[in-house]
Amino acid sequence: MLEVLNLKAHLDKERYRELISPLQRELRDVQQMIRREQIPIVVLLEGWDASGKGDSIGNLVHPLDPRGFKVFTTRGPNEEEHFRPYLWRFWVKLPRTGDFVFLDRGWYRRLLQDRLSGEIDEKSVLVAAGEIREFERQLTDDGYVLIKLWLHVSKQEQKRRLKTIESDPYERWRVARRKSEKRPGYKKCLKAAEEMLALTSTANAPWLLVEADDRLYRRVKVLEGVVSSLKAALASRGLALTGASPQEQDGTLGPLATGSRDVEVQRTNPPNLLDRVDLDKRLSRAEYNSELDRLQMRLRELELECYNQRVAAVVVYEGWDAAGKGGNIKRLTQELDPRGYEVIPVSAPDETEKAHHYLWRFWRALPKAGHIAIFDRSWYGRVLVERVEGLAAEVEWRRAYQEINEFERHITASGAVLIKFWLHLSPEEQLRRFEEREKTPHKRHKITPDDWRNRQKWNVYREAVVEMIERTSTPYGPWTIVEAEDKLWARIRTLSTLVARLEQRLGLS
Amino acid sequence: MLEVLNLKAHLDKERYRELISPLQRELRDVQQMIRREQIPIVVLLEGWDASGKGDSIGNLVHPLDPRGFKVFTTRGPNEEEHFRPYLWRFWVKLPRTGDFVFLDRGWYRRLLQDRLSGEIDEKSVLVAAGEIREFERQLTDDGYVLIKLWLHVSKQEQKRRLKTIESDPYERWRVARRKSEKRPGYKKCLKAAEEMLALTSTANAPWLLVEADDRLYRRVKVLEGVVSSLKAALASRGLALTGASPQEQDGTLGPLATGSRDVEVQRTNPPNLLDRVDLDKRLSRAEYNSELDRLQMRLRELELECYNQRVAAVVVYEGWDAAGKGGNIKRLTQELDPRGYEVIPVSAPDETEKAHHYLWRFWRALPKAGHIAIFDRSWYGRVLVERVEGLAAEVEWRRAYQEINEFERHITASGAVLIKFWLHLSPEEQLRRFEEREKTPHKRHKITPDDWRNRQKWNVYREAVVEMIERTSTPYGPWTIVEAEDKLWARIRTLSTLVARLEQRLGLS
Repeated sequence: MLEVLNLKAHLDKERYRELISPLQRELRDVQQMIRREQIPIVVLLEGWDASGKGDSIGNLVHPLDPRGFKVFTTRGPNEEEHFRPYLWRFWVKLPRTGDFVFLDRGWYRRLLQDRLSGEIDEKSVLVAAGEIREFERQLTDDGYVLIKLWLHVSKQEQKRRLKTIESDPYERWRVARRKSEKRPGYKKCLKAAEEMLALTSTANAPWLLVEADDRLYRRVKVLEGVVSSLKAALASRGLALTGASPQEQDGTLGPLATGSRDVEVQRTNPPNLLDRVDLDKRLSRAEYNSELDRLQMRLRELELECYNQRVAAVVVYEGWDAAGKGGNIKRLTQELDPRGYEVIPVSAPDETEKAHHYLWRFWRALPKAGHIAIFDRSWYGRVLVERVEGLAAEVEWRRAYQEINEFERHITASGAVLIKFWLHLSPEEQLRRFEEREKTPHKRHKITPDDWRNRQKWNVYREAVVEMIERTSTPYGPWTIVEAEDKLWARIRTLSTLVARLEQRLGLS
Repeated sequence: MLEVLNLKAHLDKERYRELISPLQRELRDVQQMIRREQIPIVVLLEGWDASGKGDSIGNLVHPLDPRGFKVFTTRGPNEEEHFRPYLWRFWVKLPRTGDFVFLDRGWYRRLLQDRLSGEIDEKSVLVAAGEIREFERQLTDDGYVLIKLWLHVSKQEQKRRLKTIESDPYERWRVARRKSEKRPGYKKCLKAAEEMLALTSTANAPWLLVEADDRLYRRVKVLEGVVSSLKAALASRGLALTGASPQEQDGTLGPLATGSRDVEVQRTNPPNLLDRVDLDKRLSRAEYNSELDRLQMRLRELELECYNQRVAAVVVYEGWDAAGKGGNIKRLTQELDPRGYEVIPVSAPDETEKAHHYLWRFWRALPKAGHIAIFDRSWYGRVLVERVEGLAAEVEWRRAYQEINEFERHITASGAVLIKFWLHLSPEEQLRRFEEREKTPHKRHKITPDDWRNRQKWNVYREAVVEMIERTSTPYGPWTIVEAEDKLWARIRTLSTLVARLEQRLGLS
């Protein structure tokens, strides 16, 4: 099967650039439809060491809204996993409807690494393959879209890459842990891969084979494979890629949208901390581009350094509706290794969460040492929306300031670094963005009647925000108020703050 | 503080029996109120090795409905825990409202074992104590009832017990793993305990000190301490121990309760597998008592053997409403070590669960190797209630037979043993039990309008049950149909089946 691949296939840079951008735009649009249609997506990348799985995932998630995907790397089972059925650790990681999960290796370990290392015998290989087919069929029958990619490299190319990786200080760790183990020969690997493909190529979950000797070619082929699989999945549900649902296209947003859209800010005297924010801060596109590049590259280095020093980073985004949290988080994560961070979108608690202390779900979501967690909204909901909407009793939200300060001290005392942003803009700029969203088909899903309702309560929220910042700015968890009237300025401001705080914590400043 | 304790305090067997039963009844009644009022309870037992923490927990959970509590043992942190803030592993184990969590050791490890082993320095002890006070205050402020017990033994008694344990083959494992570590001297331990008590005795979470040299005295004191703490918590909410809520006392159960209560079973020709069940099976109270004792003792041994052989056991209870699942499970778990099993009550999926494959939540709940999970209702809801109530499309529940067979094969192939019970009774007996529940104040909470509605659909359910049993009886997951017209017979039948299946799996038959 693999011998049909032309490993000489390659792309020059120019052609690559022509091809990649339209595909990324398509993937972004597809994500919106996936979300709207509530389809869960599992993308599994398999392939030998140094075949480019990690880089492919990075390239795949690049155009995506980071609140809609998770990335997992599969290594040998840990203790929890070891004591449960083989498929357990994959089941518990399944995405919820509307989300993506990307797996850097997965349940094929049994048929590849475990088989080659002799951990399971030849008879068990057939049993394992059967279980895998059943597992995959259960998922696709239930409406999961499962995309399986096999990244194939030639013997010479793999050898060359392993050498390069071993000589790169930022990459060495990827192969270092496997040095002691004997790597099985290429030919033996090839045979195992061929048999695995034969045993598990099914109609509902076919393998996409990718020639991975040329990096640019491989990236395009992976992206194209994923996009076309997703489009096919949408088409089979009678959906074509349009950008907006019929419902959204008629543009109705309920009675509130026709009410008064203006808000007059009640300023206090003396001016409070929000009055003093300088909303005239701006950046030119040229300044932005050069700064963005520099900061994103630096962040990627710092992500690795967090891992090396086993430091956890917790980043909190709060701000007005349409202040640009999503776009900001996207720039933050764009160049990061997706295996090192997680974006946690926070909305109203579900039934199980409501049956626990309000901090419970945030404790559960804390990152492991060495990883970064980015909260898109957070535990501050207690003193913002829950306060304003009366979802928490006054005694509860008043108590929360101290509870939050303690919570943040408990996590920073364990070595984590905590970075909190409030994205601030004027109600006039918010109105402009709301109206722009209404007018733009592919942004229309971002604006809801709730946004208009919240806007009417601007001054009540404002009071809550000021009190929140005043009462929860601590040495270990300081707030950064980000001037977000200009999106470009805001993005650079958060990224540079993040870089500075991480450098400080990691002893690199 | 500890010197005031009279370690000579003891109880003779007769006095013990007089005292323990009323306390157990009270605890059972308190559990119902806790559940009704949705109060979450955390009971923490601390104390040195061999002070009787495990036995105390066993004695505490004895009268409780096992669907309403979980038991955790705290050892040194595992990898997942090691890479997160210290309190993380306790936060994620908090009970949901209305439930109990019992902890055999907990967050005091820092101030005791870690301090004594020199793992944390003296300054960190104060910081840790501060964090602990904050954590406990956050819980009690939120309405959690936190009961902390310190079990105290004398030097001589501890020494004696450690010797006994080391010479008992069924107990040796408890101390075996600590043999290599040097046990710190009694005096040093005493000092650390005194300081811990001084640092963390607070108004919201006071310590209950228990003289634990005498086993019977210790049991009574622990039980009494827990019951009176719970009664005080209820009283502070304006509630006294009555047994039924005002709402339930008026006995209204909605319009359906007044409709026809009779059901005529539509028998098939030839008789189906339910028609053939012999509902005349009965046991005398004397036979029952002696069999129950024998089987419960044997189950406890088998539980330990499961742990030793690292075999997971999955027990599934399905059956008609009022067939006696709850009482049956209670007899099953009554003599088990609560650290080795978990009861998983299954009701309608919550929002997060609905956003995943229907098997997802069951995969997540699977026991680790060496542990027992008892499902009170299960994944069979897919082909029972979801089928009958139209919650799953026909194509979905039809597909589910195969999915369930595969699921069960995947878990048994990993070494788990699977035991499935269908508790069967006649509609006449069900009616008798429903009406008895209505009449008995402390049972009234068990009967709802839903039960009456389900009863109206007896024949539709019957059809679903027959198809379920026919289509999902496999060599690795056979169904046992339990004649449940007589509760005593049913309990012995499930327990003896369980014993036989476990013995077979463990190679002891």
